Amino acid sequence: MKLLRVGPAGSERPALLDQDGTLRDLSGLVTDVDGALLADDSVLSRVRDAATAGELAVLDAEGLRVGSPVGRIGKIVGIGLNYHGHAAEVGAQAPPEPIVFLKSPDTVVGPDDTVLIPRGSVKTDWEAELGVVIGATARYLDSAEEGLAHVGGYVLANDVTERAFQNERGGTWDKGKNCETFTPLGPWLVTADEVPDPQALDVRLWVNGELKQDGHTSDQIFPVGEVVRYLSHFMTLYPGDVIVTGTPAGVAAGQPEPKPFLRAGDVVEVEIEGLGRQRQEFKGA
Amino acid sequence: MKLLRVGPAGSERPALLDQDGTLRDLSGLVTDVDGALLADDSVLSRVRDAATAGELAVLDAEGLRVGSPVGRIGKIVGIGLNYHGHAAEVGAQAPPEPIVFLKSPDTVVGPDDTVLIPRGSVKTDWEAELGVVIGATARYLDSAEEGLAHVGGYVLANDVTERAFQNERGGTWDKGKNCETFTPLGPWLVTADEVPDPQALDVRLWVNGELKQDGHTSDQIFPVGEVVRYLSHFMTLYPGDVIVTGTPAGVAAGQPEPKPFLRAGDVVEVEIEGLGRQRQEFKGA
Repeated sequence: MKLLRVGPAGSERPALLDQDGTLRDLSGLVTDVDGALLADDSVLSRVRDAATAGELAVLDAEGLRVGSPVGRIGKIVGIGLNYHGHAAEVGAQAPPEPIVFLKSPDTVVGPDDTVLIPRGSVKTDWEAELGVVIGATARYLDSAEEGLAHVGGYVLANDVTERAFQNERGGTWDKGKNCETFTPLGPWLVTADEVPDPQALDVRLWVNGELKQDGHTSDQIFPVGEVVRYLSHFMTLYPGDVIVTGTPAGVAAGQPEPKPFLRAGDVVEVEIEGLGRQRQEFKGA
Repeated sequence: MKLLRVGPAGSERPALLDQDGTLRDLSGLVTDVDGALLADDSVLSRVRDAATAGELAVLDAEGLRVGSPVGRIGKIVGIGLNYHGHAAEVGAQAPPEPIVFLKSPDTVVGPDDTVLIPRGSVKTDWEAELGVVIGATARYLDSAEEGLAHVGGYVLANDVTERAFQNERGGTWDKGKNCETFTPLGPWLVTADEVPDPQALDVRLWVNGELKQDGHTSDQIFPVGEVVRYLSHFMTLYPGDVIVTGTPAGVAAGQPEPKPFLRAGDVVEVEIEGLGRQRQEFKGA
């Protein structure tokens, strides 16, 4: 199923995009699209049955804002340098174990919302990513298979990053990962049953219509199941937590000088087959 | 005012510790102690008036668990190496600008709750800290004075840290900062009006009754107002966000070999004058 949250920022309602591409209202059936929904198979089944039986009212998609498809996110964990191609383009070795950072949930916006370039920024960069949404509490998992079994769904993400804040201001990467609006998510959360192999997805990103990233999740150094297993030994993952699993080659930081960092007026589009497409205009904060 | 949240984990109710040390019920007056409460002066005034007028029912403190004094935390920002004495003890230079990391709000427990030593951990360490709770949305502040004006209150914190996870596993510090139960907060949130100078506080921590940290916030490299100003240029701070402002000298990592990292059965007590006292038993996860 493709689950969404639509409406004005802060008061989105749950919705479903059905097989025919029709937007359906879920607000009579569930309170939100969130960890509680993903963690409860009986509610997911009820949604599935109602959709199949044609019981869900049609929503008029015209002019309706699409928000983040996951509400009430507990934490967002980022994995750094997780594609061979991206590690190579920034001159880094493939890390021996996953690099972990955090993004605050308050950085999340909808897939087509405006992204703010921070004041003083000269190195705002894009990162098209496969986002993983946890469906069951994960502690000290033993195998990548177990890791994958704790995934509730997938979501498209742009892990927007300010490279100077990330790398040139001392301390951890978090300083360049947590600027306001830096985590567009969506349009949909696709339940895990509809993504049989998360390592078989094309990941693409365009800037002002020009293709910049054209990667594939098979290039991930640590695949999704292994990332979930690994993280579960350092932190507890809860339903609704989001993991952004790294970006393929093609970011601005990996290109020759002068590197094409984002400027006010630039338009970024992101796509993963089956997970939908995003479009963000960038403007000054 | 000293604001608290008391009751079983996950269903705490708001309370107030009055001038006489009596616990008073706030649940008829406010929904929770959180950012919304701190951001609304009229609600804070109503609480103050009700307390002064003796209108608040007494709560029986006997056997009542004290939870985190801040509910629904959006993000927790950590400042690293922010005391001259602590930087020196771990062989680090005083950083030229604040070192920033994140702790997930799901790591928060009450001040006297059990703390879990992660499986495989051999370097679990303590960090007594002054926690700052944001009272008003902060973006691109110009001065440390403005920074201080955005603080809604203060809270005692133990920024528990696994040093091997933090420093020896690649990537950022976040891996050693986000284990389950790693952020005891409380017992109280003290409103900012009752802490005239956050740089004039004693910070102490004991392990099994032995004094290990005996610091003072005047040793902070970046004082509270400057930390808030600085952070507001990299991320937006919202009411209820918590900043743990660094730890003074005396952590296990700063001591001679064999360093006294925490083991199951150890008891840690933390105190800042006016902000109360914590007591945690450590046990294996």
